[in-house]
Amino acid sequence: MSKRIAGPEIERLIQLLAKVPGLGPRSARRAALHLIKKKEQLLGPLTEAMGEALEKVRVCSTCGNVDTSDPCTICNDPRRDPSTLIVVEDVSDLWALERASAMNVRYHVLGGTLSPLDGIGPDQLNIRSLVDRVAAGGVKEVILAVNATVEGQTTAHYLTDQLSGLDVKVTRLAHGVPVGGELDYLDEGTLTAALKSRTAF
Amino acid sequence: MSKRIAGPEIERLIQLLAKVPGLGPRSARRAALHLIKKKEQLLGPLTEAMGEALEKVRVCSTCGNVDTSDPCTICNDPRRDPSTLIVVEDVSDLWALERASAMNVRYHVLGGTLSPLDGIGPDQLNIRSLVDRVAAGGVKEVILAVNATVEGQTTAHYLTDQLSGLDVKVTRLAHGVPVGGELDYLDEGTLTAALKSRTAF
Repeated sequence: MSKRIAGPEIERLIQLLAKVPGLGPRSARRAALHLIKKKEQLLGPLTEAMGEALEKVRVCSTCGNVDTSDPCTICNDPRRDPSTLIVVEDVSDLWALERASAMNVRYHVLGGTLSPLDGIGPDQLNIRSLVDRVAAGGVKEVILAVNATVEGQTTAHYLTDQLSGLDVKVTRLAHGVPVGGELDYLDEGTLTAALKSRTAF
Repeated sequence: MSKRIAGPEIERLIQLLAKVPGLGPRSARRAALHLIKKKEQLLGPLTEAMGEALEKVRVCSTCGNVDTSDPCTICNDPRRDPSTLIVVEDVSDLWALERASAMNVRYHVLGGTLSPLDGIGPDQLNIRSLVDRVAAGGVKEVILAVNATVEGQTTAHYLTDQLSGLDVKVTRLAHGVPVGGELDYLDEGTLTAALKSRTAF
């Protein structure tokens, strides 16, 4: 705002809300006003929930997931098959795979991809802990569920290398046509991969 | 999420974030993860700012604006002309007019529009306080800056009625072509109004 029309506390709230992904400067103003108007129903409970997250959320020392307990809920769940690990770049990928609930297994969160230009080498990612976890035994398969980007694939190759001496099967996600996808809109790389990996009907 | 993959605190944070305007269930997850990852830079300061807003923000007893002081920063500002009041439906309209910084005057926030079907009559809005404010003297003009909707215009007519006995000029915003607007995209009502209120070139 061009001139002072409210106390600095409201300005600051708007500025900080604008940094939340999904909110811009305009929607941050709308959000701030909504929060202020719904003090009891929303601002209070949300402040409390954020305070709790601030205090309790930590990174799981086993898999790199974020949770309010360490080891996290997933590493602690005895009903999950410990012999398969899905390696993901980020916690958001773990959440996405869990929403699909395709497999009842455990995870390992790398915390990014190898990117020498940005100064991210193997030591900046949770790679050592993955190799240690597999070397400790009990893991039969490691599924590399990294993104299908250049960085993701580079990281996958590096991981395959690191795990090659150990008695473990390393697999990766299938490439192909997304379910519900139209061929016309797909790139050549995906179509080629989908043709190569064709299956019996 | 279909099964428990994190402590209830994270789920609750996501659920509450999803109620913030501008965020949906999907972007609330992204926002929660971002906040958790940026504990020091964002989650901490934002929690603090929200706590301060929760504690300090109140409704101005003079004009109905929200601020951390009562009377609010605008009502307290001695450089603003007290002889003109702009009547708005909502605080967001006040903020919008202030961003335009067209006039250095004071405001009166109604808190909505008359809507008998929703049970909103004159007593549910800050109308009594507006009439009292004008009756107390010193106000020469009341600008009705309500929305150009049916409810807004109904409210404007009611307000004109209530203020008719007092020695005050009641005006409303001009109808016309928005600056930068294309005639082709404008409705007939706006075009008719713009033609009627044409000015010398």
